[in-house]
Amino acid sequence: MKIAIDGMGGDNAPKAVVDGVIQAIMEYKDIKVYITGPKELIEEEFRKQEFISNCITIIDAKEVIEPNEHPVMAIRKKKDSSICKALKLVKDGECDAVISGGSTGAFLAGCTLIVGRIKGVERPALAPIMPGKNGSFMIIDAGANVDCKPNYLTQFAHMGKIYYQGVIGNEKPSVGLVNIGAEEEKGNELTKAAFKLLKEEQNLNFVGNVEPRDVSAGDVNVLVCDGFTGNTLLKMYEGVASTLLGMMKDEILTGGIRGKLGALLLKPVFKSLKVKFDYKEYGGAPFLGVDGICIKAHGSSDAKAFKNAIRQTKAFYDNDVLAKIKEELQNNL
Amino acid sequence: MKIAIDGMGGDNAPKAVVDGVIQAIMEYKDIKVYITGPKELIEEEFRKQEFISNCITIIDAKEVIEPNEHPVMAIRKKKDSSICKALKLVKDGECDAVISGGSTGAFLAGCTLIVGRIKGVERPALAPIMPGKNGSFMIIDAGANVDCKPNYLTQFAHMGKIYYQGVIGNEKPSVGLVNIGAEEEKGNELTKAAFKLLKEEQNLNFVGNVEPRDVSAGDVNVLVCDGFTGNTLLKMYEGVASTLLGMMKDEILTGGIRGKLGALLLKPVFKSLKVKFDYKEYGGAPFLGVDGICIKAHGSSDAKAFKNAIRQTKAFYDNDVLAKIKEELQNNL
Repeated sequence: MKIAIDGMGGDNAPKAVVDGVIQAIMEYKDIKVYITGPKELIEEEFRKQEFISNCITIIDAKEVIEPNEHPVMAIRKKKDSSICKALKLVKDGECDAVISGGSTGAFLAGCTLIVGRIKGVERPALAPIMPGKNGSFMIIDAGANVDCKPNYLTQFAHMGKIYYQGVIGNEKPSVGLVNIGAEEEKGNELTKAAFKLLKEEQNLNFVGNVEPRDVSAGDVNVLVCDGFTGNTLLKMYEGVASTLLGMMKDEILTGGIRGKLGALLLKPVFKSLKVKFDYKEYGGAPFLGVDGICIKAHGSSDAKAFKNAIRQTKAFYDNDVLAKIKEELQNNL
Repeated sequence: MKIAIDGMGGDNAPKAVVDGVIQAIMEYKDIKVYITGPKELIEEEFRKQEFISNCITIIDAKEVIEPNEHPVMAIRKKKDSSICKALKLVKDGECDAVISGGSTGAFLAGCTLIVGRIKGVERPALAPIMPGKNGSFMIIDAGANVDCKPNYLTQFAHMGKIYYQGVIGNEKPSVGLVNIGAEEEKGNELTKAAFKLLKEEQNLNFVGNVEPRDVSAGDVNVLVCDGFTGNTLLKMYEGVASTLLGMMKDEILTGGIRGKLGALLLKPVFKSLKVKFDYKEYGGAPFLGVDGICIKAHGSSDAKAFKNAIRQTKAFYDNDVLAKIKEELQNNL
């Protein structure tokens, strides 16, 4: 398969992108990668790694979209940006998938404007997979649609289900509605209306409401919500974990020799925990509902995260998830 | 001061309530407590503790409102419930404050229906104080109003500010709007409109948007949001902390002798962290905007939590916070 990757996307670009691509090329034999960005800059990175492969093509793109630019304006104006060029490769059928660690807003706007929506999709949604205590879980939508109508959430559920089946390999993923309260009548106007719709859907393993306190347990696979709530969950998850570990570190540092010895002995525990909680293991977040394989990598992605985003893109492609999403939407809406 | 307390409210009632009241009576000399509930049951608890004091009055209430009952219906039907009787004591001016660890929905409905709103208040709001890394922070609203209009949030900000000043003792608390994105133009329809209103307020130390990832740092004192978002933050906070500590425990248990020894050495660290994260230290959540001192204690409150809720009620009363809230609302709306 052919993968387009935004060479300038992310805090550690272009180095992390190039290093991740090199790792992926060495591991997966059946991929070709097209990297967009200022040609000399990208070439320079490959030279530094002394890596030459005919599986890599550099596509020159002179502009870069910065995170603080207005997403739609930036996509419309900067046609020669690394994001636009990468998206164009998918639009024109030259590549099968696109990955970017750049501005989330610009990438999502670009996916919709350049690649386009699947026919019948109300709103495409961002759907990261997160590590939980008892398993991984998907949040859909995690921030693309801050104000939602109830029927958007039904579509999110169907798209999330198909992706979870195809990429995570769970035949019958459970689907829950993020809500404050377990009972059907709890929640705000949106969740009350969405619950009514979701429970009527025939082809969903809908298990009801999932309260925010239970999200991180990972017992429910696909968590449906509006983008404001989903982004809140996502960011709160990162924030609390980091606060708690930071507080623990502070306590250990002021705990004298006993605390330091204890911390030393528990090093493997902390390390294993860090790996379990590491979203970089999970690649990026697919943007579901657009007519192409579009993956948003985390802005702070390192080489490993980009490599895993490529692995995820391959699973998306190899399992024919895009066609299956189209089929699911046609059959259920 | 005279405090009414719902003797049957909470998972550990009436024992935890009675024990907490005893602790408070012994510590604070200037309080009288009125406990509502089935007279014999409450008397029996005091007998078990061999505690007699003329600072305690038991008010017989034969009914109990269960957590799964419809809040408004329960308040209207069960006039002889421990919650209704406690609220009535405040309404009739026999008590200065009321505390309940019972059904949140029923207590909030009762506060509004029996005690009543402050004139000019659009919606009373639940405002718990939470422990953060660098300090405590308030979430207002934490669940009383799941669908909000922008001007409700401005009132929440003013009420939260006055409470934070009076009870926490911070003269100029910072006020932030919970939002997904730091810039003014980010967010959903509600937060975009609320931001515009909040930045125009003269008597608020408004510091702009606070992203969910930064909430638990505790750098901003009063966090304003709709009740759906606030409840999500609150529950997610508890959930992620518990998930993380649970995962750590599992790792330690499978980590052999090394892990166990390390955990033993770090026991003081874990303990100190537990105390820092213990919401029970903070008492209950005030319901601001009703015309009385109404405190919702956590459903799982133990004796210490009830004692701290009484301490908090005293601070609310001693610092004349209710009158100051009324003044603030008159001057700013």
